[in-house]
Amino acid sequence: MIKLLVAGTVAYDSIETPFGKADNVLGGSALHFTNAASFFTDVGIVATVGSDFDLAGISFLADRNVDMSGIEVDQGKTFRWEGKYGYDLNQAITLKTELNVIETFKPKVPEGYRDAEFLFLANIDPELQLHVIDQVKKPVALVLDTMNFWIENKFDHLMEVIKRVDMLVINEAELREITKEHNLVKGARKLIEQGPACIIAKRGEYGVFMMNRDEVFLAPAFPLEDVFDPTGAGDTFAGGFMGYLANVGEATSETVKQAIIMGTVMASFNVEDFSINRIKRLTMEEIRERYSAFKECMQFGDISL
Amino acid sequence: MIKLLVAGTVAYDSIETPFGKADNVLGGSALHFTNAASFFTDVGIVATVGSDFDLAGISFLADRNVDMSGIEVDQGKTFRWEGKYGYDLNQAITLKTELNVIETFKPKVPEGYRDAEFLFLANIDPELQLHVIDQVKKPVALVLDTMNFWIENKFDHLMEVIKRVDMLVINEAELREITKEHNLVKGARKLIEQGPACIIAKRGEYGVFMMNRDEVFLAPAFPLEDVFDPTGAGDTFAGGFMGYLANVGEATSETVKQAIIMGTVMASFNVEDFSINRIKRLTMEEIRERYSAFKECMQFGDISL
Repeated sequence: MIKLLVAGTVAYDSIETPFGKADNVLGGSALHFTNAASFFTDVGIVATVGSDFDLAGISFLADRNVDMSGIEVDQGKTFRWEGKYGYDLNQAITLKTELNVIETFKPKVPEGYRDAEFLFLANIDPELQLHVIDQVKKPVALVLDTMNFWIENKFDHLMEVIKRVDMLVINEAELREITKEHNLVKGARKLIEQGPACIIAKRGEYGVFMMNRDEVFLAPAFPLEDVFDPTGAGDTFAGGFMGYLANVGEATSETVKQAIIMGTVMASFNVEDFSINRIKRLTMEEIRERYSAFKECMQFGDISL
Repeated sequence: MIKLLVAGTVAYDSIETPFGKADNVLGGSALHFTNAASFFTDVGIVATVGSDFDLAGISFLADRNVDMSGIEVDQGKTFRWEGKYGYDLNQAITLKTELNVIETFKPKVPEGYRDAEFLFLANIDPELQLHVIDQVKKPVALVLDTMNFWIENKFDHLMEVIKRVDMLVINEAELREITKEHNLVKGARKLIEQGPACIIAKRGEYGVFMMNRDEVFLAPAFPLEDVFDPTGAGDTFAGGFMGYLANVGEATSETVKQAIIMGTVMASFNVEDFSINRIKRLTMEEIRERYSAFKECMQFGDISL
């Protein structure tokens, strides 16, 4: 039985960064998420691919206890995204988006997934996110991601989803856009008043801001010397975050903080290579080492004044 | 005898932010620096003001053991800066700069200041910074700030100063501009190869990045709900940083980390009001409390996986 369920996209990406190019490589929010989360727990994916999709290319995930029976193969082509980055790797420029099978996707949650204790709604149409929520039992933690397109085009549906989730994991800019509030503390408080107990704002190379009803938690990003391709970093963060929470089995203020660090660690690996490649060949030993090294970068003593 | 010496500017600022306006208020790098540093150690200021400057307006600093005998009163008007900020308080827009007495300033370090153990060269012409260095005994820690104007117009002189200092405390964008390197780790390494043992990059609301020969240290900014006026935040950071180092008397990797947190704490107070007002009425008890609260925002546990 799976502990963690993700609903999102599986895609073929074509990416150009100042450090290289990759054409038609594996991507999509659900895939980056699962690739990371599967180090920590059993994951099930709800997504759609086209008949052109090479399922053998993701068969390695089965060895990590990923259940792929929720991936629907539809007539048509797989979702494709083409983008590039300049030296400021925080900013992706979308060159082309081909929705393909995503356009008519209506996510069906398999019977065996419906009592998953942890549920991540990756960035898809808020109406589809609501449709997923309606099919599952109330999980221990229901976590939402979204993007500017939905904020601008389906705001009312998005707010309906927000009212029903426990946590948001979104970009800092999206938090500002949803709340029309430049200050993160004020913006997070506004959203918490709508229902979610915890707001996590991703700040790219500047790390993560978390606020719940009692606390603020701040984590920098891991200081990498070579960032190769940031595509999927946010979803990889979410995968490490949710995977860790599902592993420990509860979402308290303490476990959420550890999970944020774990998400950051996983994202830091993801950007070291194109597509899902770095996380694909990652080991648990490397994860443990970087978690410790990262913690070391934030340690400082008490003062005596 | 003073422990900490700063060479920089004392100014009258006119500032507009989305939250209010203040005309002809106290400002300048040396003044913001000293205001913060004087909580921790004895400070001496090398700067110039015009005959229009109201010295009584800064007499409160004398009660905090600031030696103001190095402030030269010259014929002419005091340096004036006029600027404004939008909602993105990281970006100052300069409306007017009147150099006035700064234009012909030639800093003279008083005899009694020359063996100060800690020296901060605030943002002034690199040629003047060299002139200051030439007048003092080698301090325990010689720390430099600069700005884009000098990087663009006096690069060779600036590099000469950089070769002679122990640490740089500069903006992230300036680090990138000096080193022509987008990646902070690579940029900091390039500068360390030039001589300084430690590079501190200020990232505004995103905190601070530090790198020395052995370690990287990352600190977020304190999560404030109400930021009123960011003018002087960088100099206030430097003041808290250097004041703390002078207080403990040594600049090791450990004390530098604590000093970075102290600088961040002081800067977080500075932005809560216009000019030097918030730090002027600050108490040591408030400083201790915020240091602890800030530390709390970064705590997380070890994992067991």
